Amino acid sequence: MILIIKIGGNIIDNSEALDAFLKKFAAIKGHKILIHGGGKIASQIAETLDIPQKMIHGRRITDEPTLDVITMVYTGLINKNIVADLYALQCPALGVCGADAGLILAEKRPVSDINYGFVGDVVEVKANVLQDWLTQGLTPVIAPVSHDGKGQLLNTNADTIASEVAIALSAYHDVRLIYCFEKKGVLMDVNDDHSVIPNLNEKTIKELKIDGLIHSGMIPKLDNAVRTIHGGVESVIIGHADDLDLLAKGHSGTKISEV
Amino acid sequence: MILIIKIGGNIIDNSEALDAFLKKFAAIKGHKILIHGGGKIASQIAETLDIPQKMIHGRRITDEPTLDVITMVYTGLINKNIVADLYALQCPALGVCGADAGLILAEKRPVSDINYGFVGDVVEVKANVLQDWLTQGLTPVIAPVSHDGKGQLLNTNADTIASEVAIALSAYHDVRLIYCFEKKGVLMDVNDDHSVIPNLNEKTIKELKIDGLIHSGMIPKLDNAVRTIHGGVESVIIGHADDLDLLAKGHSGTKISEV
Repeated sequence: MILIIKIGGNIIDNSEALDAFLKKFAAIKGHKILIHGGGKIASQIAETLDIPQKMIHGRRITDEPTLDVITMVYTGLINKNIVADLYALQCPALGVCGADAGLILAEKRPVSDINYGFVGDVVEVKANVLQDWLTQGLTPVIAPVSHDGKGQLLNTNADTIASEVAIALSAYHDVRLIYCFEKKGVLMDVNDDHSVIPNLNEKTIKELKIDGLIHSGMIPKLDNAVRTIHGGVESVIIGHADDLDLLAKGHSGTKISEV
Repeated sequence: MILIIKIGGNIIDNSEALDAFLKKFAAIKGHKILIHGGGKIASQIAETLDIPQKMIHGRRITDEPTLDVITMVYTGLINKNIVADLYALQCPALGVCGADAGLILAEKRPVSDINYGFVGDVVEVKANVLQDWLTQGLTPVIAPVSHDGKGQLLNTNADTIASEVAIALSAYHDVRLIYCFEKKGVLMDVNDDHSVIPNLNEKTIKELKIDGLIHSGMIPKLDNAVRTIHGGVESVIIGHADDLDLLAKGHSGTKISEV
């Protein structure tokens, strides 16, 4: 069993929450991989550097100066500080982006109504490269920047990277993919943190959608989870980063699986 | 034989020179490692972010905001763009800093007359980690940031890292260490690029120093080369980055060796 764990900006931006999370992450036995998002630091630095930030449908438009900021902040500042912290917690980590060892090949998103700029859609994850690092005793920590194979770095969605990494590694391992976010799991009532739905599968998700019982913000996450399960991943768990120790054991959050 | 090649800011700052260098680097057959310095980008970004930069005796005083800029620029922007470029040149590179896999342990320089801030002096390089990556078919590209083992990143001199990496790997390989700089080699007459001294050793360096024939800027580089040879490295070559193909074969620059 290998755990693929994704954290987002809400943890990155909160140094106490990040420290607590990394302690729990380091304590997990066995193979594991961390995928981290960005957080507000990139936007703040872009602003200070007078690089205007444009968001369309919640996605960052990545022009060249913005890509430089993302590369600096995601693959440098955030990634290397996490790696140094994990080493101090007896977890030898290897911080990489998708260009390292050609790990994540992507293609620049074609320009349609919207020109997203230097944004990449994942084409292939080289699971054998990750496998080599795991065998070496290293814990990969992946920043959400990929490459096009021709020398161009590309800003890439961290949720998608987590899903593609999980699918690629399912050729070698039973894979559990854990998405950490700001809620305890998928909630039956979005205002009640105690209403976590413990188990879902494709059929029950479809039923909840038909009945209009799922909060609209959750729908892309659940669709992505179903796609990941179809790709060969044993289970996808969605829950709160504070509960990582429980999520890792399947004792918290919402578990989405085949059956 | 393995080649350890160090480039400095003069190449990093010049995108045409860097492209030409990387083409020659990628074309070198066999095991190789690239260590890169910083360049002016870090200072420019620090200035734009209103972080005042202090240099004492040519060394950067690294306060906390400056360390963040260095981490962003060295381990992120410069490192990952080099890695993506090398992959496009059929050279699968792995971009790391000294915190990755605990590669380069350092200690924060003690405060004496000068407080250098978050600057590290190298304590140990884990050659076995580099060896694993080389065996995997990867070319390590190392940014000059190390760690103290307790979660703190440290700004670290790239020349020293190159020398310590070379010494550590001499337990596994015959090692040739190549320092690229802006001259063709050690010059007998600093104003005449044709006056390169082809071979030096500890004895001839001592004689040239006594006779006052070595340009003062070269003395630390030569002292460092002698120390590296004492550490078990077969030869240290000092020359121009444009001549990398020739330097790699020992057909250009100044070669410093035991005899």
